[in-house]
Amino acid sequence: MGERCFSTTERHNQANIGQEEDFEAAKKKAVDLGAKKVFIEDLRSEFVEDFIWPAVQANAVYEDRYLLGTAVARPCIGRRQVEIARKEGAQFVSHGATGKGNDQIRFELTCYALYPEVKIIAPWRIPEFYNRFQGRKDLMEYAQKRGIPVPVTPQAPWSMDANLMHISYESGILENPKSHGPADLYLMTKNPEDAPNTPDVLEIEFTNGVPVKVTNIKEGQSKDSPLEIFSYLNEIGGKHGVGRIDIVENRSIGMKSRGIYETPGGTILFKAHLDIETFTMDKEVRRIKQALSIKFSEFIYNGFWYSPECDFVRHCITKSQENVQGRVQLSVFKGQVYILGRESPKSLYNEELVSMDVQGDYDPCDASGFIRINAVRLREHHRLQSLADNKQ
Amino acid sequence: MGERCFSTTERHNQANIGQEEDFEAAKKKAVDLGAKKVFIEDLRSEFVEDFIWPAVQANAVYEDRYLLGTAVARPCIGRRQVEIARKEGAQFVSHGATGKGNDQIRFELTCYALYPEVKIIAPWRIPEFYNRFQGRKDLMEYAQKRGIPVPVTPQAPWSMDANLMHISYESGILENPKSHGPADLYLMTKNPEDAPNTPDVLEIEFTNGVPVKVTNIKEGQSKDSPLEIFSYLNEIGGKHGVGRIDIVENRSIGMKSRGIYETPGGTILFKAHLDIETFTMDKEVRRIKQALSIKFSEFIYNGFWYSPECDFVRHCITKSQENVQGRVQLSVFKGQVYILGRESPKSLYNEELVSMDVQGDYDPCDASGFIRINAVRLREHHRLQSLADNKQ
Amino acid sequence: MGERCFSTTERHNQANIGQEEDFEAAKKKAVDLGAKKVFIEDLRSEFVEDFIWPAVQANAVYEDRYLLGTAVARPCIGRRQVEIARKEGAQFVSHGATGKGNDQIRFELTCYALYPEVKIIAPWRIPEFYNRFQGRKDLMEYAQKRGIPVPVTPQAPWSMDANLMHISYESGILENPKSHGPADLYLMTKNPEDAPNTPDVLEIEFTNGVPVKVTNIKEGQSKDSPLEIFSYLNEIGGKHGVGRIDIVENRSIGMKSRGIYETPGGTILFKAHLDIETFTMDKEVRRIKQALSIKFSEFIYNGFWYSPECDFVRHCITKSQENVQGRVQLSVFKGQVYILGRESPKSLYNEELVSMDVQGDYDPCDASGFIRINAVRLREHHRLQSLADNKQ
Amino acid sequence: MGERCFSTTERHNQANIGQEEDFEAAKKKAVDLGAKKVFIEDLRSEFVEDFIWPAVQANAVYEDRYLLGTAVARPCIGRRQVEIARKEGAQFVSHGATGKGNDQIRFELTCYALYPEVKIIAPWRIPEFYNRFQGRKDLMEYAQKRGIPVPVTPQAPWSMDANLMHISYESGILENPKSHGPADLYLMTKNPEDAPNTPDVLEIEFTNGVPVKVTNIKEGQSKDSPLEIFSYLNEIGGKHGVGRIDIVENRSIGMKSRGIYETPGGTILFKAHLDIETFTMDKEVRRIKQALSIKFSEFIYNGFWYSPECDFVRHCITKSQENVQGRVQLSVFKGQVYILGRESPKSLYNEELVSMDVQGDYDPCDASGFIRINAVRLREHHRLQSLADNKQ
Repeated sequence: MGERCFSTTERHNQANIGQEEDFEAAKKKAVDLGAKKVFIEDLRSEFVEDFIWPAVQANAVYEDRYLLGTAVARPCIGRRQVEIARKEGAQFVSHGATGKGNDQIRFELTCYALYPEVKIIAPWRIPEFYNRFQGRKDLMEYAQKRGIPVPVTPQAPWSMDANLMHISYESGILENPKSHGPADLYLMTKNPEDAPNTPDVLEIEFTNGVPVKVTNIKEGQSKDSPLEIFSYLNEIGGKHGVGRIDIVENRSIGMKSRGIYETPGGTILFKAHLDIETFTMDKEVRRIKQALSIKFSEFIYNGFWYSPECDFVRHCITKSQENVQGRVQLSVFKGQVYILGRESPKSLYNEELVSMDVQGDYDPCDASGFIRINAVRLREHHRLQSLADNKQ
Repeated sequence: MGERCFSTTERHNQANIGQEEDFEAAKKKAVDLGAKKVFIEDLRSEFVEDFIWPAVQANAVYEDRYLLGTAVARPCIGRRQVEIARKEGAQFVSHGATGKGNDQIRFELTCYALYPEVKIIAPWRIPEFYNRFQGRKDLMEYAQKRGIPVPVTPQAPWSMDANLMHISYESGILENPKSHGPADLYLMTKNPEDAPNTPDVLEIEFTNGVPVKVTNIKEGQSKDSPLEIFSYLNEIGGKHGVGRIDIVENRSIGMKSRGIYETPGGTILFKAHLDIETFTMDKEVRRIKQALSIKFSEFIYNGFWYSPECDFVRHCITKSQENVQGRVQLSVFKGQVYILGRESPKSLYNEELVSMDVQGDYDPCDASGFIRINAVRLREHHRLQSLADNKQ
Repeated sequence: MGERCFSTTERHNQANIGQEEDFEAAKKKAVDLGAKKVFIEDLRSEFVEDFIWPAVQANAVYEDRYLLGTAVARPCIGRRQVEIARKEGAQFVSHGATGKGNDQIRFELTCYALYPEVKIIAPWRIPEFYNRFQGRKDLMEYAQKRGIPVPVTPQAPWSMDANLMHISYESGILENPKSHGPADLYLMTKNPEDAPNTPDVLEIEFTNGVPVKVTNIKEGQSKDSPLEIFSYLNEIGGKHGVGRIDIVENRSIGMKSRGIYETPGGTILFKAHLDIETFTMDKEVRRIKQALSIKFSEFIYNGFWYSPECDFVRHCITKSQENVQGRVQLSVFKGQVYILGRESPKSLYNEELVSMDVQGDYDPCDASGFIRINAVRLREHHRLQSLADNKQ
Repeated sequence: MGERCFSTTERHNQANIGQEEDFEAAKKKAVDLGAKKVFIEDLRSEFVEDFIWPAVQANAVYEDRYLLGTAVARPCIGRRQVEIARKEGAQFVSHGATGKGNDQIRFELTCYALYPEVKIIAPWRIPEFYNRFQGRKDLMEYAQKRGIPVPVTPQAPWSMDANLMHISYESGILENPKSHGPADLYLMTKNPEDAPNTPDVLEIEFTNGVPVKVTNIKEGQSKDSPLEIFSYLNEIGGKHGVGRIDIVENRSIGMKSRGIYETPGGTILFKAHLDIETFTMDKEVRRIKQALSIKFSEFIYNGFWYSPECDFVRHCITKSQENVQGRVQLSVFKGQVYILGRESPKSLYNEELVSMDVQGDYDPCDASGFIRINAVRLREHHRLQSLADNKQ
């Protein structure tokens, strides 16, 4: 229920960040439940440009695997919620995230950062509420009894969170980390076994580390606005079953949880960006940027998108992307993304310099000195060890 | 020609680290070329246990993509070469690595670290040699003229380096980073398009972060010695086309180069280990270990396996693996590895604690305090910014 | 009041970690206040060996300046408190740390880590308590009214925390970060202006990165047990006014606070250890250890001494100290510590190698190659920039 | 001889970066030795603004102690040398740095980075030269025989390098790391024992992390241009014996060397900047900036001032300094710098928030939740350990 945020029951606001949802029904439901004002906001474009793009530039990935599809959506929703709350003069905001999860933190830190005086109502942390509703099951029963439609029916014994970037599945039967995710879980991607037997080949063009155009080489089709590019990558990735992972991750509050995610377009972009970045970025800048990206990913995961440290790191990462420009060709097939080739006017790749067949402006003798100087320290270390060994 | 090392033409030694090669022919060739003594050493088991296993424990990966298949083999070969050189009283060792590549560094730093007084002959850095043989082409012609058989024939316009862990392909037509790798390049893995239409499901059991058993769930087959485990994972990975990458990487000496790699078993292990590690390792230990692993990977790539810093980091990483124990189930299909589930007697995963349906020993109210304390700093920052904005 | 911890009013325990205090009076006071059992524990030796020594090995320093004198004492006290609580069957422990500070966190995380089921009573976070006593002033008045002797009298308008390692001063008139600390603040160190006009010269001997002996060169006096060594360094440091700092630091809970500290012995040891460590530790190991030490210091500051990550990092740091052995000579004078010289059987310093007057086993020509290889990347970068400049 | 660089004997250029030197005599000497053109350039202002100031912003310090006084001067000199070489159409540049030291690297990487086609002549790495002059002694004799005046006379058995920021002393009798530096070594700072018995009290004002004004509180004197500020801090620091260190450090080429440095003004600024920075910079930004600064310091030390990575990190550090503004008061006395207080319009310090006597907008109860959430992970860890212990 993460993406639904209430600023008291008086006013209800809900973000369209690309999830499949009947927003008219949502509006009606809110009104039926007593909301005096309902805001349904289409945040899809700003979600892509202001949140997904920076994550792409960073190669943001949490604990080596999770592309942060839920985590980047939270500050996007929270930002708008706060804007509306301020405009409407609301002193309270509310959300439906649980008391054990990450989303409560992401929403609330966003709110506190952008609207420090705000008061937050989190029903799942109010004893009167959570004692009455012990887990999702009680809530489902209550909702059914009162005629409130809810997305998680007893037939789907897990919860999910969907947006333009990904769908996450967790809890319920997925809480047993050993049990395999059921085949009918996935809504965004085809089962790779059922995916087409021929790949799609895409060319993605980057400027400043963000995609500016995607072209389907065979079909000739291309997209060049952020939302269209990302949606198209989702379409192609979904069709080929790209971006499914089943992981155990460490939550902000220190417990391990199991989640299954599908991130079709994000996975394609992650791989493509990694390629064009390494192609165009200086080796040592890359090392520093890699460390900054790990921090950036942790900040996002932990809800600190709107924080001085995240601002700072985002600024640094943006700076690092100035030359990340060029085109990557890749094929998408049966759950995999294969980089095929790349080109760039800004590349530091020098075919002549690296060639085995051309000497170029490079003297191999220099390498001897380079190696021997690097060995000075190693040889000294060996000398000391030998002394120590001889003494024993 | 990387894995062939000569300690003067007098004595020739060659390592079997799992590459497909006719070692008898290699021996004969060495004798024909004048070697008085020839050592063909089977290093496969020690390669797996002493070099690949630590890389698995570390999740070693260079620049986010390369699993270091060539880089971990070099110190293994160099160590044995130095042992033989010392035993034979050889003051010189030699190798055939080029003057622009990484392998010269990896071999030589290993030699200098373990045998500091040694002298190294690197023909590709001797002007008389490399001026006569301008690139691999001249050399091929010379070899053909003199009747010396060489692995890279003019029909395969690239060079390759093979061992138990991977095959790398580079130079020649691959030097153009835009051109796609030809379909007939790969020797270790099937084209995913031609791979079986049904997955294999494996269970890999880990102790101390290294695999101790692999079982093919459907077929019931299992392996439990390091070399057998790794070879079997290569077989399964190869059959399903797992582990192909096409990358541009930054060499030690600072130039960018394009390489295509296939690492079937290593890729399966990388994913499985990542999963069991995150399942069993404390969150914050993991963060520190992740940073150490990046360093470890750089040390390996840059030839510093035998160095004080690599010893130190390896020690720390080994320590971190004490509880990395358990079983991971995964499926291998059409070039992909899918984690299906995991279990461990040492897991820090607490199903009751994380459950949405059970309160357990966790008070949701605590999260309110946690979030508000984390917001103290963010709100202060906002206050300062507002002051600044008001002044402007 | 940090170092006083109560496990309910039934049982009172208090740690002697080296602060100047009348423990008999403290005992009497506790009994007078109704405690049925009183534990006054001399933890000085274990404080030095189990807590200060690891901090010395790490060169532990928070935010580049604070030597963590209070922070390392907290887990020492907490550990004993929990031992007593467990032995006595107490289910509750209590402490007098305030609700805005770091110490509450350090105490409580220690308790929770070592005794997870424990319940903690922190009066300063109980509204009935803190609303009645708005700040320390009310408390002083209450204590005076009830005849409870307290260390902070209205005449000293700040609070202090003392132990063997340091004294910290904060709050009260020190809360204005611009106001200078009063001259009569310091209890452990002489004003440098009043310190002796001749230095003391010490030789400190280290093994495994911890001091095993200190000798006053001129006076011939020496100490060789941990507690005696540290106490003697406090004496000499205090006599010469060493270790005073006035800083603003970032608390765990995210607010900035101003503290004045004096750490005489710790400051001498910090400088001496840094010297012997750099003398004996490999350059690259040192870089990694430096990063680990920064983390270690943050863990200590934030109360995570007893945590998996702190255990892990401590293990790694201990490992790094295996060769940190030797003797450092230094002089202590007017607030400063001057390193004079050092020697070690384990040093990696090679006088012949580094000498400007001896060639040794070093070929200067190698440096040319080393530099030119390092320049490959820089020259490529310049080439790219020139291309870009020409296009504009 | 580090700061003297020759672009062939035809043209001689020499930088005035603040060292005490008779530049007229130097000019005459160059002409006498056959130089057709002599450039004596006053680089003092750009040295302060373009090189020292960024080091101050970064709190740049190598291996925890060395303030990089020589290292920051090299790119300053090299930059001008290359400018002149380009202007004069010189294809060769030359320098007098030795083949075992850091300065050769710093000069040459600067030259290669800014003038990639340049050829470098380093006599100390030419066998004909260094075999004839085995160390500095032979050179001294040669110079004396030929009537070439040299700064290091046999009476001063060590070498030194001086500039506006510091003087370094090394080699000769200092090569024995145990021997104490002689009392008459220091030229820039008074012996603290002979320094005044009353402190000077300074107020340093910062904007964007660089000093814009220094005021002597008692004397009322103030300076406000970069060169004047830095020179005045040198004067005050020198008068009070501030900034002397005796260290063993790790050179770029991997050997340990002993150096004695005096950096009076730089030491004062280092301490003052550290104070105002921590006062005004967000805690988490500070942590990231601290790590970047360590890298920046290594880049400077190793000669990579002009490199993509140093440009990148410098950009990030500059960004971090936007709010580093305010005034620090400090006293300088007998070799020490004592911070007394600080104030800033941009401070994140909130006296009311932190006060022990004011509740403010802070609820102590929140801390309970904060601590308990942080303890979740620690308690889980304990649970796992207990399970393991019970099994054994």
